[in-house]
Amino acid sequence: MTYCVGLCLKDGLVFLSDTRTNAGVDQIGTFRKMTLFQKDNDRFFTLMSAGNLAITQAVKEILLQGQLLNGINLWTAENTHDAAVVVGDAIKQVYDRDHEALEKAGIDFNCNLIFGGQVKNERPRLFNIYSAGNFIEATPETCYFQIGESKYGKPILDRVLSFTTPLNLATKCALISMDSTLNSNISVGLPLDLLVYERDSLKACKLVTLDESNPYFQMIHQLWGERLRSAFNSIDEPSWTGANKDKSISAPAKKMGAVPINHPPAKTKAVKSKAKSKIVKTTKAAKAIKTAKPIKKAAAKAKA
Amino acid sequence: MTYCVGLCLKDGLVFLSDTRTNAGVDQIGTFRKMTLFQKDNDRFFTLMSAGNLAITQAVKEILLQGQLLNGINLWTAENTHDAAVVVGDAIKQVYDRDHEALEKAGIDFNCNLIFGGQVKNERPRLFNIYSAGNFIEATPETCYFQIGESKYGKPILDRVLSFTTPLNLATKCALISMDSTLNSNISVGLPLDLLVYERDSLKACKLVTLDESNPYFQMIHQLWGERLRSAFNSIDEPSWTGANKDKSISAPAKKMGAVPINHPPAKTKAVKSKAKSKIVKTTKAAKAIKTAKPIKKAAAKAKA
Repeated sequence: MTYCVGLCLKDGLVFLSDTRTNAGVDQIGTFRKMTLFQKDNDRFFTLMSAGNLAITQAVKEILLQGQLLNGINLWTAENTHDAAVVVGDAIKQVYDRDHEALEKAGIDFNCNLIFGGQVKNERPRLFNIYSAGNFIEATPETCYFQIGESKYGKPILDRVLSFTTPLNLATKCALISMDSTLNSNISVGLPLDLLVYERDSLKACKLVTLDESNPYFQMIHQLWGERLRSAFNSIDEPSWTGANKDKSISAPAKKMGAVPINHPPAKTKAVKSKAKSKIVKTTKAAKAIKTAKPIKKAAAKAKA
Repeated sequence: MTYCVGLCLKDGLVFLSDTRTNAGVDQIGTFRKMTLFQKDNDRFFTLMSAGNLAITQAVKEILLQGQLLNGINLWTAENTHDAAVVVGDAIKQVYDRDHEALEKAGIDFNCNLIFGGQVKNERPRLFNIYSAGNFIEATPETCYFQIGESKYGKPILDRVLSFTTPLNLATKCALISMDSTLNSNISVGLPLDLLVYERDSLKACKLVTLDESNPYFQMIHQLWGERLRSAFNSIDEPSWTGANKDKSISAPAKKMGAVPINHPPAKTKAVKSKAKSKIVKTTKAAKAIKTAKPIKKAAAKAKA
């Protein structure tokens, strides 16, 4: 698996990727998922990849060779949008070559990319490119993309990040998002490739590969767990008595009663009618199914 | 979708489920995923369900009817383990009835349950029951199960929860886990059903349905976001200069160099050899693929 996150912010772009791949749990490998393209003082692009490694490497190779796709490549595209079209075309070329064989083998054509950068005289831009070669672009409202194992690390991005977050703060946020993912999923692993691209620099400004020995990542890894537990401990526990109204958890919901408590089907008539009233809440289930054995009368009539 | 979490702790059990179901984004419904079974002073069970709603309701109906499966039902099973076998057998019965028709319709037989409780004279137990009716049991080392949309809410459980966590603290943790999920995924929604089961009580001790108006959940929802941001802000930003060693992010990794920067394929011989050295790191890609067009010599020989 993989986790990559790309941010498109007022001051530039942040790219962070892990380096673990796996085919089952007994075939773990280390492969870079970040590729950088730089034409000095003219353009700078970053590509991050998730999905089938053979597919994403094939796409990358086409781009690195500078193959012309509909007459352009990453080095000649007029802007970052056109460069994203080139990346999409490279995916389509690999699809045309491999999809039949993959289908025969029962393997999905799985390729999910984050591509971003800047061409001189335009703003930095960020795209999420799908297996079909089509893509979407980040906006100030939705300023990040994740690919791969994205869910564990999404909450902290949702809580902290906005388009105006300064680059260094956003870098911290991306690293915490990665740390949460590393902690909860062994298919994502160190080292990490991190690039902080400063707007209009047209080059890899801050580029580093982080492993267990990196002082800052060590600090993040240790402190974030501690601070999270402190934050957790700083919130009051629920009050079930209702004595403290602000902390009371026992206030009933407005539109929905409590979960009914089901008791054993009764044997005597008196108890039966009690059981019947308890079971009324489950009538939607009774309507929807036909059980293999005949439904008991009490349940069948429960709606009446 | 669904998010349910069940905890099996020293002092008892905690069950928390949302109530949103969906079939596509334009068919959203509210259905309970928590079902309670109580035989006074003898046994207490809770079932939470995720997956295909028609399947999980059919399973629930069989259990509520007290149908005998291999001679026992939830009311007569000798212990919680045997009760879990009954639940598994109910799944198998629905499978036998429906799987052919579901296959024809191209629908997976998807049923994932959390089942737990206590029978008099044994300890509280918690099980995760799969679509095949087989199951695993929680242990002190792995004391929680999640079903449905589980990833967003896993990091906080991993950081905070252990077998000895008191029930009220664990309840807070489950609610924060749910809040993180609600925040990041619209397929999970309020109201929530919460049950805190106290060991040896053999009844629903603390049972409540929470919606937007619940004072405690309101507090969690507001404060957790704030405290998370405070925790985030309390951690120093990375230092790229290396001036402060503890915060330095620029220290290189030990086993892996930085990501290579790729430049445009060169036209003159002198520049070509420079470009060649930059491309060496991508040889694994070159080995693995056959591009549709002939590979340029520089790339083909890159490993040499």
